[in-house]
Parts: sequence; structure tokens; C-alpha cells
Amino acid sequence: MEGSNQVVKHIVIVKFKEEVSPERKEQLIRGFANLVSLIKPMKAFHWGTNVSAENLHQGFTHVFESTFENVEGIAEYVAHPAHVEFANVLLPTLDKVIAIDYKPSPVVDLDFHMSN
Amino acid sequence: MEGSNQVVKHIVIVKFKEEVSPERKEQLIRGFANLVSLIKPMKAFHWGTNVSAENLHQGFTHVFESTFENVEGIAEYVAHPAHVEFANVLLPTLDKVIAIDYKPSPVVDLDFHMSN
Repeated sequence: MEGSNQVVKHIVIVKFKEEVSPERKEQLIRGFANLVSLIKPMKAFHWGTNVSAENLHQGFTHVFESTFENVEGIAEYVAHPAHVEFANVLLPTLDKVIAIDYKPSPVVDLDFHMSN
Repeated sequence: MEGSNQVVKHIVIVKFKEEVSPERKEQLIRGFANLVSLIKPMKAFHWGTNVSAENLHQGFTHVFESTFENVEGIAEYVAHPAHVEFANVLLPTLDKVIAIDYKPSPVVDLDFHMSN
């Protein structure tokens, strides 16, 4: 059991619009990463491009993974002016986006999840 | 820098079909988790249900996150009979699925990613 101090992962999966240049993508990725230094409850940031060979990626090309101490931390992040400003810049460059949050648990926590 | 021993994350995001019961979902989640004990290159498995309040989850409800030592390990996993058997059971229960793999990097590895 991981208890109540379990982290929450915030996963954002995107496909940029065709016209967004590599330089612009790089700028945006640095902007996303920079939020860690601006928004206290955001504890970590990692990202990567799709390297899947399974062909189930539905055209998505980038994964952005942020770590928070709890769901309240994500709410604080979402409402933070630095995030709002960045999201207003990022979203118009995206063709598709999914953002999903979850508490990563091994299967032993299944009962907890099923009741939530 | 994380070097060449960097792990690869295999993220599967799903929405189950409406008719799939909670008991069936539980069974499938245990089946997914059980692959860790059957497929050697699969080093870790975590999962969680969507707890996002942002409303960008596009109807997806579950995240399954597996960790591998490298992309060759994912290829071995994808081709492994235990995975093939499980996928053949899981996929018909899904309304939507995205599977995407990435090498989680802090932004300092940006140049590496942009050239790949």
C-alpha cells in the first residue's frame, strides 16, 4: 500500500499542428518544462517523443509527464497564472490534446481504485 | 544527462465499452498487471483511473503505465505470447485506446530528442 502520500501524475499527450516548426516546438517544450520552476506543487517534469512501433498512438507525437503531490496540487497548477499563460500559448499550436491525471498504483491498490 | 541506460515508458490510455462491468474491468486490470511476472523486459507496472478536473481527458478513464529498459524490451513485450493473448482479450472490451512510448527526459535532453 502506498498510503495517502501517493503522488499524482499529470499526463498530457499532444499532436502539434503541421505548420508548427521544430524550433517553435522546442520553444514550447522549454516553456512547459520551465513551469516546474514557477509552480510550487509541480514537483517534476519529463517529456518524450513517441517511439512506439505498435501503431496505436493515434497520431499523437509528444508525451509530457508532470508529477504532483496530490490532486489539490494539480488544481493549484491549473489555476496558476504561469500555467494559464502557457496553456493559452500552447493550445492554439495543437491539433489534438489529451490531459489525464492518475494516481499510479500497483495492482494491490485495486480495491481502493474501484471504490473511487 | 540520463545517458543511454534511460528507461522507456509504455503508456496505454483506454476507455472501456459501456457494457464492461466493474468486475470485468478489475479482472482485466489484474491481467495487465500480471504481465510483469510473465514478461522479463517489463520492469514495472502502475495504473490509475482518471482524476483530472481539467476536462481534457476526451472520455478516457484509465491509464496503464509500464516501464522497460529500452525500446527492444518493448518490442519483445509486444511480441510475447502472454501479451498477445492478453491484448486479444483486452482490445475487444475497449471503446478507445491509445498506446504511446517515450523516453522520459528532463528538458536538458532536448537536443537529443529534436535530432531523433
